[in-house]
Amino acid sequence: MRRDELAEAQADADPAGYRALARAPGARHVEVLDQRALPHASVTVRLGDAGTAARAIREMWVRGAPLIGAVGACGLAMALDADPGDAALARAHAMLDATRPTAVNLRWALDRVRQRAAALPEAARADAAWREADAIVAEDVAINRSLGGHGLVLLERIAARKQGPVDVMTHCNAGALATCGWGTATAPIFLAHAAGLPLHVWVSETRPRLQGVNLTAWELAQRGVPHTVVVDGACAALMRGGRVDVVFVGTDRVARNGDVCNKIGTYGKALAAADNAVPFYVALPSPTLDPALPDGDAIPIEARSPDEVLGVTGREAHGGSVRVAIAPEGARGYNPAFDVTPARLVTGLLTERGLAAASEAGLAALFPERFA
Amino acid sequence: MRRDELAEAQADADPAGYRALARAPGARHVEVLDQRALPHASVTVRLGDAGTAARAIREMWVRGAPLIGAVGACGLAMALDADPGDAALARAHAMLDATRPTAVNLRWALDRVRQRAAALPEAARADAAWREADAIVAEDVAINRSLGGHGLVLLERIAARKQGPVDVMTHCNAGALATCGWGTATAPIFLAHAAGLPLHVWVSETRPRLQGVNLTAWELAQRGVPHTVVVDGACAALMRGGRVDVVFVGTDRVARNGDVCNKIGTYGKALAAADNAVPFYVALPSPTLDPALPDGDAIPIEARSPDEVLGVTGREAHGGSVRVAIAPEGARGYNPAFDVTPARLVTGLLTERGLAAASEAGLAALFPERFA
Repeated sequence: MRRDELAEAQADADPAGYRALARAPGARHVEVLDQRALPHASVTVRLGDAGTAARAIREMWVRGAPLIGAVGACGLAMALDADPGDAALARAHAMLDATRPTAVNLRWALDRVRQRAAALPEAARADAAWREADAIVAEDVAINRSLGGHGLVLLERIAARKQGPVDVMTHCNAGALATCGWGTATAPIFLAHAAGLPLHVWVSETRPRLQGVNLTAWELAQRGVPHTVVVDGACAALMRGGRVDVVFVGTDRVARNGDVCNKIGTYGKALAAADNAVPFYVALPSPTLDPALPDGDAIPIEARSPDEVLGVTGREAHGGSVRVAIAPEGARGYNPAFDVTPARLVTGLLTERGLAAASEAGLAALFPERFA
Repeated sequence: MRRDELAEAQADADPAGYRALARAPGARHVEVLDQRALPHASVTVRLGDAGTAARAIREMWVRGAPLIGAVGACGLAMALDADPGDAALARAHAMLDATRPTAVNLRWALDRVRQRAAALPEAARADAAWREADAIVAEDVAINRSLGGHGLVLLERIAARKQGPVDVMTHCNAGALATCGWGTATAPIFLAHAAGLPLHVWVSETRPRLQGVNLTAWELAQRGVPHTVVVDGACAALMRGGRVDVVFVGTDRVARNGDVCNKIGTYGKALAAADNAVPFYVALPSPTLDPALPDGDAIPIEARSPDEVLGVTGREAHGGSVRVAIAPEGARGYNPAFDVTPARLVTGLLTERGLAAASEAGLAALFPERFA
């Protein structure tokens, strides 16, 4: 895909005009939204070297499995701009790979760029790495668009048998901000809304980092999609009350057997969906599939700082962002960032090739080349 | 029970020296902890008339099913101090009853005081109402102590077959702060800790009002019980990881069939416990039992202000309490304060008369007089 085609595809994905990751044609750096500032402020930062890219991933200026893969790829290209030698390539790969452990997209993207660059003479490596990073970005947009189309069919089926808006529940942010365009779990929602299908989205706030209320609610507002924010603990009751037609969530890694790793709280939502016969779909772009791992228990779960649990960042009355403590002084917290939802609780895995059963057989049928 | 005996029973329940509700001997008012200030500050307020008592319940200076019953009873006694006539009694009863709809204890306590007073000449009503309120307070302490003893046996059984501390999970605050002493779900924990049984408590923060991290973590710290704070969404993963031996929660109302109404998020915890074979016990003092309602779907669920969902109160670096917004401006929230856990998910109901199966037969066997 040429750069202008990529820009066009990204613009299609993003009528509201925000973009998690952008590279000007020919630029040797990228610009990203600092997602820590949303929704209280919109702050764009320039990532111009691999160290800054690594910091942006580690400190979650950028987050979301597909997006950190793309930022990692660009970071590796920046490293090769600075030093295309084998040793520097290995160092930069290791540094970027060490930033976050759970999403498989990061390692996948870094390996892909390294493989492309390492096969070439040093002088050709950086340009090739940037081309590969561009390809990763472009493919992400196309994958999400395709996955969204398959999800749109599911929403249309629900709409056909229901009076009033389709009530969709999501979790965390698997939106455009988690990707290079469209989002994963949000792609069906955005396409359905654009097609005029009446929708209402339940946004669970997603403690501790509040990506639901900070990011997903912001994205839905930007695009005019009706939505309501609830606390994470309210989701099961909403399902029991018949107020949710379907759940769409994203994922950071899916194992060979269809077990789904995603933001902490996803497993509980899946249990509530199963108890109330609410379809529970996981939006799975194929780079997030990891057939090398037999099941979800083999996925490394990142434990983040307890400070995220013991406090909250919000906006004061005068508009400034402020961090407040909520726990008694000296309290201890524990902060696993992800959980694993067993495949048995997943109605289907929504991929760019269609809906797969959450099982090895289901995944292998759609992605035979990954299970060879 | 005489006043000095009551004071002694409350002191036994509360070695750490805090008390949700206190009345000095002979006083015609009560003092309560303003629980909105905890854990950042300890603020005691005087409730001297029925209107202030109603406000304290409605605005959640005091909360917890048994405690609001006791405060309501005292409020009605204060109303009779001001005007012992029938019309004033009816007005005060209605005003106090209208403050919060879900916990059945409030109506139960108000009816009990009204019934005692209404049978007497006006001149005798206020004193009788205060005696009845005292009795409600004393019975609450005794019920919780007894219930706790039955729960202690369950913890001792787990400890006998386990290396290391027993990992207990709770939700919201069903502690001493929710009662006149001991707490309900915390009574087994406090008794076990006092008996030297090694324990560790998982405290879920309990959005939106954060009673877990604000109140339960504070109580456990006051008493020296080891504990760790987690977000609500992490509880299911902790159970799946084998890190929880037993769950104890409180309740605001239990229906005839054993369905349990409790703080929002309880149903999701029960689902996770069932999926992982973790025993799930509900601490049920008998005044919280409502055999008049056939099942949980008949329990009125309070919807509180969306502002509770769209913001958080915490402590700034300089120590002051501050309210911060977390949602995008203009966002809509929905805030059901309670949910219903179907009886099928409840391992047992822990009452002052022992452990009951969560069913009409189980409850009727222990409380035949309530099912006559």
